[in-house]
Amino acid sequence: MKAEIICVGTELLLGDTVNTNATWLAKQLAEIGVNVYKHLVVGDNHNRLKMAIENAIKANDVIICTGGLGPTQDDMTKEALAQACELELVQNEEAVVWLEDRFNRRYGGNISPNNYRQTLFPKGSKPLYNPNGSAPGCRLDYKDKHIFLLPGPPREMKPMYNSFVKDLLEKENNSILYSRNIKLIGIGESSAEELIKDIVSNQTNPTIATYAHFGELTVRVTSKATSLEEAKKISQPVIEELKNRFKNKVYGYDEDSIESVVIDLLKQKELSISVAESCTGGLISSTLISVPGVSSVFKEALVAYTNESKIKHLKVKEDLIKEYGAVSDQVAGQMAKGIAEFSNSDIGIATTGIAGPGGGTEEKPVGLVYVGLYIKGKLYTDKYIINSSRDGVRRRTTLKVLDWLRRMLQ
Amino acid sequence: MKAEIICVGTELLLGDTVNTNATWLAKQLAEIGVNVYKHLVVGDNHNRLKMAIENAIKANDVIICTGGLGPTQDDMTKEALAQACELELVQNEEAVVWLEDRFNRRYGGNISPNNYRQTLFPKGSKPLYNPNGSAPGCRLDYKDKHIFLLPGPPREMKPMYNSFVKDLLEKENNSILYSRNIKLIGIGESSAEELIKDIVSNQTNPTIATYAHFGELTVRVTSKATSLEEAKKISQPVIEELKNRFKNKVYGYDEDSIESVVIDLLKQKELSISVAESCTGGLISSTLISVPGVSSVFKEALVAYTNESKIKHLKVKEDLIKEYGAVSDQVAGQMAKGIAEFSNSDIGIATTGIAGPGGGTEEKPVGLVYVGLYIKGKLYTDKYIINSSRDGVRRRTTLKVLDWLRRMLQ
Repeated sequence: MKAEIICVGTELLLGDTVNTNATWLAKQLAEIGVNVYKHLVVGDNHNRLKMAIENAIKANDVIICTGGLGPTQDDMTKEALAQACELELVQNEEAVVWLEDRFNRRYGGNISPNNYRQTLFPKGSKPLYNPNGSAPGCRLDYKDKHIFLLPGPPREMKPMYNSFVKDLLEKENNSILYSRNIKLIGIGESSAEELIKDIVSNQTNPTIATYAHFGELTVRVTSKATSLEEAKKISQPVIEELKNRFKNKVYGYDEDSIESVVIDLLKQKELSISVAESCTGGLISSTLISVPGVSSVFKEALVAYTNESKIKHLKVKEDLIKEYGAVSDQVAGQMAKGIAEFSNSDIGIATTGIAGPGGGTEEKPVGLVYVGLYIKGKLYTDKYIINSSRDGVRRRTTLKVLDWLRRMLQ
Repeated sequence: MKAEIICVGTELLLGDTVNTNATWLAKQLAEIGVNVYKHLVVGDNHNRLKMAIENAIKANDVIICTGGLGPTQDDMTKEALAQACELELVQNEEAVVWLEDRFNRRYGGNISPNNYRQTLFPKGSKPLYNPNGSAPGCRLDYKDKHIFLLPGPPREMKPMYNSFVKDLLEKENNSILYSRNIKLIGIGESSAEELIKDIVSNQTNPTIATYAHFGELTVRVTSKATSLEEAKKISQPVIEELKNRFKNKVYGYDEDSIESVVIDLLKQKELSISVAESCTGGLISSTLISVPGVSSVFKEALVAYTNESKIKHLKVKEDLIKEYGAVSDQVAGQMAKGIAEFSNSDIGIATTGIAGPGGGTEEKPVGLVYVGLYIKGKLYTDKYIINSSRDGVRRRTTLKVLDWLRRMLQ
């Protein structure tokens, strides 16, 4: 099965937006065994877009386009598809109902006329409803080819690929691929590859691939079979062996996030938590609260960015700050203890560090972070040196401290 | 001057590597007024690559290819170019000297034979020496077109673009492009276009384009001229007119973010701020603290996720919660006042809402958020209904409340 990915948008063509859609779609298609031979980026230009679609239809079984489905004159992907296939563009009544319902629910009616462009479709095609935006996608089966138009914003496009494209292509390709992701924190990509290279080089089914994200690593085990049961059976012994190799670096699987794993552990152990944040500035709290149902264990967070706040609410002694500095092991420890007492919780976490870009010294450089962890009367501290941007220091600190808490709870 | 960017590599095609080269090159070319009409990604396949180059030559004045210049059998870009232009591939003696010299200096000689592939060039083309790698690039002038082959690794490609491509194209194109981005919150893409469509349709220089991000809108004004001064002069009246149309929906320009604008206003007015967050869970605080130098105005944030926390630290009366619920106008107001007093700050912001996915009722559905703003003794409240995911409710609330504060401060 041959496929081409066409991404439409002048912002891509001008280099204002990185084309992550093509990368993401290519990866998804590779996983289900569809061969992608070309990615193309074209701007919001009718003729060039039409020609691109015509050429893609000639050479492929599947074409996935993203972008150009919105309400404005610039959005012309459906029009170009209609012309490429010599079809009329007609209003879809079902799509009109869907659009009006969406506007009524969200904005109390009040649809500006150009929004109705989103209800026009090439004759014979099928609207694909968008749970996260007002532009529906479109599926057209034409000359034995499948053509999918998906919206450009990744958070709209990805769930629509999963709902409307994946299963169909998998079925037609007549083999299923089963992937399981092992999620790790605290090990780099090259060390991980070194540790498992004998397994990787001896395997063809399942295959093993590593992907590094920001501070995390995913090891994906993918097996190919004609049934899900068989695929699982093929993967299982390899997954067990990888778990043995990586030991407590493994924090979870598939959809797990470090925060969801930590919250689950807290619930299991019926422990409440509160957070005192200086350099992370609310990011640990915000990360924990992104987990639904967190309220049974999360008590409070205090963003104590100033010394005043640390002294007044977290009972950090002024002398301690004078002697060791606000960014110190001693202050991090007291902040952790202080927030547990302030909020009357079982666990207190604290961070204090120099996120940069300014504020660093020779002795205490940008990227130096002290963290404190107070668990039921016991106090632990640790020190990180993170070579990254302001945002990177804050994000990595959040990840590392949550992983530390996970290991302590396990 | 029309251009196409062709990126070669199976790792791009499979989605293992994000194609940042195309984005970077596109941006560079846009800046010097070269019109990029297409980006293409093809794998390491001789025929498809040759066809891609042939097609690109037909339609463009400039073609920039990246990747496929190395020593292995997979590297075939120069071969494909030679065939596309019906030229012989010949060894370049100067390139042999350069390569041998490089290997002598770095590895004490010891060149494996396949490295000499890197000294073969289409007849009549010119090697472009690579300061950061062993694969030279290549420039071919063919039928009045400029074709540049650059290596794939960004750290090799970028300096080579700057040394060998930029000046030449700038000189030949004799024009520069100047863009200014107007940044808006509180208006949708289609309403914005409706409001300015007469300006957009009457303009060819500057051009006007809108881009929607998550809850924000950017209107880009781009003018073309032979000097920067002239380009600015062309854009200025259009920018002024757009500002008049959008009024206080405009929060900034170019690199501004809503948080950087708010922090600047607070600094100008010497006002301190603190935040009480329930549903946003630290996101407002974390967003503000992402701005370097925030410490002169940001005092504290309390993530008061529980009723207990609201009552104990923010002086929300228990009766108020009983009568109106924790998610109410009354509680949001008291939280804002309460945090300003708790932190002794001039301004207090507060949020309380139902981020979902659970916890909604008919009367108070998921997405209902109350916000409070306490500014030097005066209390304001507002209500949002945000139809989005848990994360979306929290992110949009953050954006909206910061924009509200901006308008209040201006």
